[in-house]
Amino acid sequence: MKIIVNGTDLSQAVMKVSKAISVKTTNPILEGIKLSVKGDNLTLSATDMEIAIEKTIRSDTFMEGSTVVPGKLFAEFVKKLENEDQVELVIEPDGKLKIVYGSSQVFLSVLPAEQFPNIDKTSKENAFSLLQKDFKDVINKTVFSCSTDESRPILKGCLFEVNENELTVVAIDGFRLAYAKKKVKNASSPFSVVVPARAVAEICRILDNDEEEITFISERNKFMIEVDETVFVTRLLEGNFVNYKQIIPDDFLTTVRVGRASLLNSLERATVVAKEAKNLVKLDIKEKYINVSANSESGNVNENVIINMEGKDLSIAFNSKYLCDALKAAGDEFVNIYLKNNISPCVIKPYSGEDYLYLILPIRINA
Amino acid sequence: MKIIVNGTDLSQAVMKVSKAISVKTTNPILEGIKLSVKGDNLTLSATDMEIAIEKTIRSDTFMEGSTVVPGKLFAEFVKKLENEDQVELVIEPDGKLKIVYGSSQVFLSVLPAEQFPNIDKTSKENAFSLLQKDFKDVINKTVFSCSTDESRPILKGCLFEVNENELTVVAIDGFRLAYAKKKVKNASSPFSVVVPARAVAEICRILDNDEEEITFISERNKFMIEVDETVFVTRLLEGNFVNYKQIIPDDFLTTVRVGRASLLNSLERATVVAKEAKNLVKLDIKEKYINVSANSESGNVNENVIINMEGKDLSIAFNSKYLCDALKAAGDEFVNIYLKNNISPCVIKPYSGEDYLYLILPIRINA
Repeated sequence: MKIIVNGTDLSQAVMKVSKAISVKTTNPILEGIKLSVKGDNLTLSATDMEIAIEKTIRSDTFMEGSTVVPGKLFAEFVKKLENEDQVELVIEPDGKLKIVYGSSQVFLSVLPAEQFPNIDKTSKENAFSLLQKDFKDVINKTVFSCSTDESRPILKGCLFEVNENELTVVAIDGFRLAYAKKKVKNASSPFSVVVPARAVAEICRILDNDEEEITFISERNKFMIEVDETVFVTRLLEGNFVNYKQIIPDDFLTTVRVGRASLLNSLERATVVAKEAKNLVKLDIKEKYINVSANSESGNVNENVIINMEGKDLSIAFNSKYLCDALKAAGDEFVNIYLKNNISPCVIKPYSGEDYLYLILPIRINA
Repeated sequence: MKIIVNGTDLSQAVMKVSKAISVKTTNPILEGIKLSVKGDNLTLSATDMEIAIEKTIRSDTFMEGSTVVPGKLFAEFVKKLENEDQVELVIEPDGKLKIVYGSSQVFLSVLPAEQFPNIDKTSKENAFSLLQKDFKDVINKTVFSCSTDESRPILKGCLFEVNENELTVVAIDGFRLAYAKKKVKNASSPFSVVVPARAVAEICRILDNDEEEITFISERNKFMIEVDETVFVTRLLEGNFVNYKQIIPDDFLTTVRVGRASLLNSLERATVVAKEAKNLVKLDIKEKYINVSANSESGNVNENVIINMEGKDLSIAFNSKYLCDALKAAGDEFVNIYLKNNISPCVIKPYSGEDYLYLILPIRINA
C-alpha cells in the first residue's frame, strides 16, 4: 500500500469512523481502524461488532493494499496533520506503516488486515427514505425512553415500524413509552425491526445535512445507512418487542390543555427539591390550574400552573424526570394531557394531530 | 429578614459565590451560602476555609436579617428563577426560608447564620494594582507549573513578589520552573506571599473586565481582591518558598532560536507516540534544525524543525509535556532556548526582553 491523501480529509474520516472503535475489548483488532486502498479510494473501517462505520476518501494511489492501525493512537496523530496538504501512507517492507508529511516521518506498528472482521453490508430487502431532519425529529422524540436495563435487552432499542409510507418509532422502558411517527418515501413492504439505542444515536451524529434525504436499508439482522461516502451498519436486537398498541389506553376522565414551557419550568423547579425524594412530584389538577408540589427534607415547592381542563379533578403523582423528559421532547407550544385516575397511566399528545404520544405510569401515593 | 431582589441578579451572584462552597466537608455549614441583609444590600457569602467569596447585590429591604441556605440546592433552584423580575426572600416564624415568585412559593430548610465562619477581610497592609488582563497574563504564563504533590505544600502555590512597582510570579514543581513579571501601580513596600494555585485560578475566573484595574491586598496570612462588589479572600500558604534565583543558570553553551508554533506542533505529534514511553522525546540540536524523535511500542516519530543556532551541537531528552506546556504559555512567535549540556536544565525565554522564563530539567538517557 502506498498512497497520498489530504490531511483534512484523512483527519475527518478518522474522526467519523472512530465512533465505532471498540473501547472495552479483549480483541486488539477491534481497537483498530482498517485502511484499505482500491483504485483511487482509501476506505477506513471500524467496528465493535455491534455497530460498524466505513468512510471512503479520495487517494492518489501508487500501490493498493490494506492494514489495521491502532485506532486511538492513529486518530490522535492524524488530528495533528489536519493542516497538511499531502500525507503519504506507505506499508514498509518490515510491515510497519510509514506516515510522511512535510520533511517528517512516523512509523506505526500495525496489525494484519486479514484479522479484521468483515463488515457485511445488507441487500436492499427492506428500505425507506426520509429527510435527515425528519429522522432526527422522530428519534429525538423517542430514544430517551429506551431502557438501560440489561434484564430485558429488547427494550434497549427503538422499534422501527414501516407501513404504507409511514415510519413509527417506539421506545419503552417499563415505566414510560414514547411514540412518534413520520411520513416516509419509497417504503418497501411493511416490516419492523428493533435498532439498538446507541446505534440510533450514532446515526443521528453522522447525519449532518438536514435537508438531504437518507435511505435506510434493513435485512433480517442488520440495519444500514449510506450517506456522503459513509456507511453505517448496526446489528438489530432480536426478540419480540412489547405490543405497544395494547398498552396505550383510550378511555380518559380528565383532559388538560397546558402551555408546555410553563409546566416544564414548574416541574424543573420542583425537581430541585424532589431529587432527594426519588423525584416524586404531586399534581393536583383543578378547574383552572395544576398545583405542582414536591417535598423533601431540604424544603418544599408549591406552584400553580394555569390550564384548561375538562372532566374530573384529580390528584396524581409522578417521577418528575419522566414528565420533564416527555415535555422537553414534545416541542409544541401547547400539549394535551389525558388522565383517568391516580393509578392509570397519563398520556401526553400534541394539541392537534397524532404525531407523537407519551405514556407515563404514575406513582401510587396515599391520598 | 424580608427582601425583594431581581431574579437575574440573584442567580448571577449565587453562581459567583458557589465556587467557594465546600464540596468535601464534614461540616454542613460550609456547604451553605450565607445570606445577610443590611440596608439595601443582600450579601451572599461562601467559604471552604481556604478561599471565601462574597458578592453584594441590591435589595428592596423590608426587614434585615441573615441565614444560611443549602448551597447546591439553592444554586440549582435560583438558576430556574433567572427570568423572574421579583423574587421575595423571607425568613418565616418557623425559621424556614420562604422564596416567593409569581404566584408560587418554596420553603427551604436553613441553618443558623451564627454558625457560619467569619470571613476576615484584610487591612491594606500590602497592596498593588494592575489591569485585569495583565494579571491573567502573568498567571496563565506560570500557574500550570505549580506542584500538585502534597509532600511539599508550599509548591502548590504561586510565589507573588512585589518590588519597586513590579510583580513577579513564580511556580515550581521540582522538575520545572515558570517565571513571569509585569509592571504594577501603587505598590506598597516590597513583600512576597505564596497564593494557592486553586485560589489564583478562581481569581482569574472572577475577573471579567480585561481593561479594568484590580487592586490586590494582602496581609500576613491572607490575600484579597475586591471587584464589582465581589470580594475574594484566600488564605496564603505558609513556609519558605524555594530560592528560585539560585536555580536559574546563566552560563550556556548552546542558544537556539525557533518558531514557537512549529516546535510545539512537532512536539505534540511526538507526544502521541511518546505517551506510552513516559512522554520521553529526544532533541538532536544541529546547526540548522532540531531533530525531534520519540519511540515506543506503537511506533516512532521523527521530525526536523528549522532553527537558528549558536554554539555546540547537543542531544538532550525531555518530558515532552513540560516542553509543550511552556511553549503553549509563552505566546510569542519566536522563543530562545538556552542549553549547556544534556544533564543541565534548559531555559526558554522570549526572543526579546525578559518578561518570562521557563526552566525545565532534562531526562538523562544513554547517549
